[in-house]
Amino acid sequence: MLREVDLNKNLTKNEYKEMMDKLAPKFAALQREARAKGLPVMVVFEGWGASGKGTMISRLIQPLDPRGFKVFTIQAENEEEHMHPFLWRFWTKTPAKGRMHIFDRSWYRRVITEQMDAPMDQKRLDAAYHQILSFEEQLSADGTLIIKFFLHISADEQEKRLKKLERSSETKWRVTKADWKHFKQYKAYLPMYDHMLEQTDMSWAPWHVIEATDREYAAVKVMTIVAGMIEERLNEENAKESRSHLAERAQEELPGTEETMRTTVLDGVDVSLTMTKEDYKKRLSVLQKELTRLQNEMYLKRIPVVVALEGWDAAGKGGAIKRLTEPLDPRGYEVVPTAAPNDIEKAHHYLWRFWRAMPKDGHMTIFDRTWYGRVMVERIEGFCSQAEWRRAYREINQMEQNLTDHGVIVLKFWLQIDKDEQERRFNERMEDPEKQWKITDEDWRNREKWDAYVKAVDEMILRTSTTYAPWTIVEADSKYYARIKILETVVRALKNRI
Amino acid sequence: MLREVDLNKNLTKNEYKEMMDKLAPKFAALQREARAKGLPVMVVFEGWGASGKGTMISRLIQPLDPRGFKVFTIQAENEEEHMHPFLWRFWTKTPAKGRMHIFDRSWYRRVITEQMDAPMDQKRLDAAYHQILSFEEQLSADGTLIIKFFLHISADEQEKRLKKLERSSETKWRVTKADWKHFKQYKAYLPMYDHMLEQTDMSWAPWHVIEATDREYAAVKVMTIVAGMIEERLNEENAKESRSHLAERAQEELPGTEETMRTTVLDGVDVSLTMTKEDYKKRLSVLQKELTRLQNEMYLKRIPVVVALEGWDAAGKGGAIKRLTEPLDPRGYEVVPTAAPNDIEKAHHYLWRFWRAMPKDGHMTIFDRTWYGRVMVERIEGFCSQAEWRRAYREINQMEQNLTDHGVIVLKFWLQIDKDEQERRFNERMEDPEKQWKITDEDWRNREKWDAYVKAVDEMILRTSTTYAPWTIVEADSKYYARIKILETVVRALKNRI
Repeated sequence: MLREVDLNKNLTKNEYKEMMDKLAPKFAALQREARAKGLPVMVVFEGWGASGKGTMISRLIQPLDPRGFKVFTIQAENEEEHMHPFLWRFWTKTPAKGRMHIFDRSWYRRVITEQMDAPMDQKRLDAAYHQILSFEEQLSADGTLIIKFFLHISADEQEKRLKKLERSSETKWRVTKADWKHFKQYKAYLPMYDHMLEQTDMSWAPWHVIEATDREYAAVKVMTIVAGMIEERLNEENAKESRSHLAERAQEELPGTEETMRTTVLDGVDVSLTMTKEDYKKRLSVLQKELTRLQNEMYLKRIPVVVALEGWDAAGKGGAIKRLTEPLDPRGYEVVPTAAPNDIEKAHHYLWRFWRAMPKDGHMTIFDRTWYGRVMVERIEGFCSQAEWRRAYREINQMEQNLTDHGVIVLKFWLQIDKDEQERRFNERMEDPEKQWKITDEDWRNREKWDAYVKAVDEMILRTSTTYAPWTIVEADSKYYARIKILETVVRALKNRI
Repeated sequence: MLREVDLNKNLTKNEYKEMMDKLAPKFAALQREARAKGLPVMVVFEGWGASGKGTMISRLIQPLDPRGFKVFTIQAENEEEHMHPFLWRFWTKTPAKGRMHIFDRSWYRRVITEQMDAPMDQKRLDAAYHQILSFEEQLSADGTLIIKFFLHISADEQEKRLKKLERSSETKWRVTKADWKHFKQYKAYLPMYDHMLEQTDMSWAPWHVIEATDREYAAVKVMTIVAGMIEERLNEENAKESRSHLAERAQEELPGTEETMRTTVLDGVDVSLTMTKEDYKKRLSVLQKELTRLQNEMYLKRIPVVVALEGWDAAGKGGAIKRLTEPLDPRGYEVVPTAAPNDIEKAHHYLWRFWRAMPKDGHMTIFDRTWYGRVMVERIEGFCSQAEWRRAYREINQMEQNLTDHGVIVLKFWLQIDKDEQERRFNERMEDPEKQWKITDEDWRNREKWDAYVKAVDEMILRTSTTYAPWTIVEADSKYYARIKILETVVRALKNRI
């Protein structure tokens, strides 16, 4: 979840002021309404050392009526807390109806900070995750709104901040030996944090990763999300009360905010990466020979492989699949194209048809489009409800974890091209009688929804790039480059296993 | 869950015929409606060897249109299945909308049968439970109705059945060495089954323990539950469609069925157990001395204890608490009486006030009435919704597991008296000016709901008597007997730990 985030987000002072001037009074009004309606809210701040949790909290509470919130700083357990079950100190700090409790670090200390300093065995760690999930689930089922932030900065940024703090005599004391120790372990902690985020990213209490390089940007984003989630919940409650959709208050968007504040993944992709035809041919030949050999070994060692291809229309999935399968023994692989579900498929859970197609040990299944349709086309076209696609991230992660637990190598590719390149390819297809069949009116219609897809894909990659089944983003404006990157990734993954 | 069930249930042939004559056509009609409405149903049969799963399934499908259901017998994985992830064979067998799939053994094989024959390590076992839960949760969220039965017989009954099968040349082949091997392990498997049931008893897919000693009784009970759950779901769907409660079809009860078919716990309790005053005094003095000593040791070893007392009004909780606390150092224990929640408590999750009162290490908290009010008085008086009390069983189990994970000894007592004895005690209180304060109009009103309470208590004890925090039922018509049993249980539990 963390690796994919583009951390280069910022706001100018002017932009910040302008946005805050609109946002703050709106947030204050929402707090009043939440109090009146008796909505309990918990806001959790986790993140790297020196990522600015304190600053974020100060700015968040600025517009609020101080009678309505309370801030808790969660440090190591005191003696009283240590003599109680782990969750005791958090249960006793849950907000009453209408109140907002803000946590500077939280119950996640248990699986991160404590785990860093004195690692627990696997069994105790699993139990801790269990307890955390049941805690959030119970409160959420009871009506508490849980908003979780992870403040994310790069290792370089962290170093810069620690040094700056040390330079001033006023702030020097804030930097401890432990801070530097943790800094040195940045790379080791990254997968640990990723694991934490993916284990506890639930549709009823999702994580929001905040790009915290720029404090102004981060502060606006945090407040936008808190305000948005409170507003959404109040709207739901209002709709329930009046038992009619008519009463639903339109959710006011602050103009431009949503686009600026979105966590992006695709934006940072350099699609211009390219490769000469000569290099391509050489690499292709080498890689395909390796693949032939590796398929054989994979079969003997009974290792199953899933290759999942997603990407824009005309991004080059077909060509990539061709290069991937050319060297393979057809008895050992299958290509599964995914079209709109037929009637029998529609009568089942959306994952059913993909489960049926999963490879057996020693075999490879290549999916040309996949189960991710749930959180792209089905989300955008409204073929499923918001609740359905929101919970799909976790359902999909669970399925992929089932696969990897069994030993399946799961490789997921997103083929990224830019919008102009797509247009060029569409026109090329229109003009070439041999390729005309490849392009339909629907492709043109989907193209009109480009921005909606970007938003869905960004969220998809973020929430489903797991430690056990990460996405590979393929820069695909150059077909040569893209095909080689895919083949290389497959070859590397197989070699690593064997 | 299994130990508490009274297995002595049966029906005469006539009763069976009469009940089936009414039930079967109703069930058939419900199947047709479920098909028309597109409701997918999964029925799971697990249970002891020779508990009659085959018979139950034959009888269940009797009234059904064979085009609407399919029966799957789940044996050891074949090669194809073994070469796929564990859940693959079950995902591929999920029912389409409107169909009913019945499983003779199921995905629970993984954590029981396979576990018996070739134990997995803890990590793999935990993963299997995880997968099972996510499988059921995903299907259930998608609209599949999941109905799970555990056919329960005693070890004696199992032995009788295996011997009978062996005696006949026609059925001899059905008894294998493994059956006898498993029979010999009956006592070892009991906690394993209990663990399985408590790990996977979810409000969206609860377990139904079937007293399978008498096949007629069991068959009627199974069909009653399947029909009842389908009917309930159809009613919910109808209510949703018309967005109004008016359209809700009254759930037709077959007269007398519910009472006959209920799994009972309290019925089997012999409240007449008694003790002479002389014996009482002797035992009390010994036990109290031990308690004084044990409290000291408990304090030094930092062991926390929770004693939870529930029971009928006038069952003798107060007297028992007095005898329990007399020998204790008041600095080491606290008695927490539980009344109706005050305003601040009402503004929080119902478990919040109990979490706050939990003892710290080395201390004892005695609850006079407890969090179980959620599934008794709040259920019966409608202070919480059906969805709320149904999910409370698991929430409560999770809280108690949090406690026991931390090292708390959790002891739960249900004080059982019969209805006449209660009346006698009420009248005694009315007549004694010293005791009049103890009896209120509310006590008399609660008494009128005796049957509703019996039903709620039976279900409560069944669903919350866990391996880590079991209930102790105290036969309390004799106060002497009851007090001694409670003290003995506390002393034994403390001794076991120390």
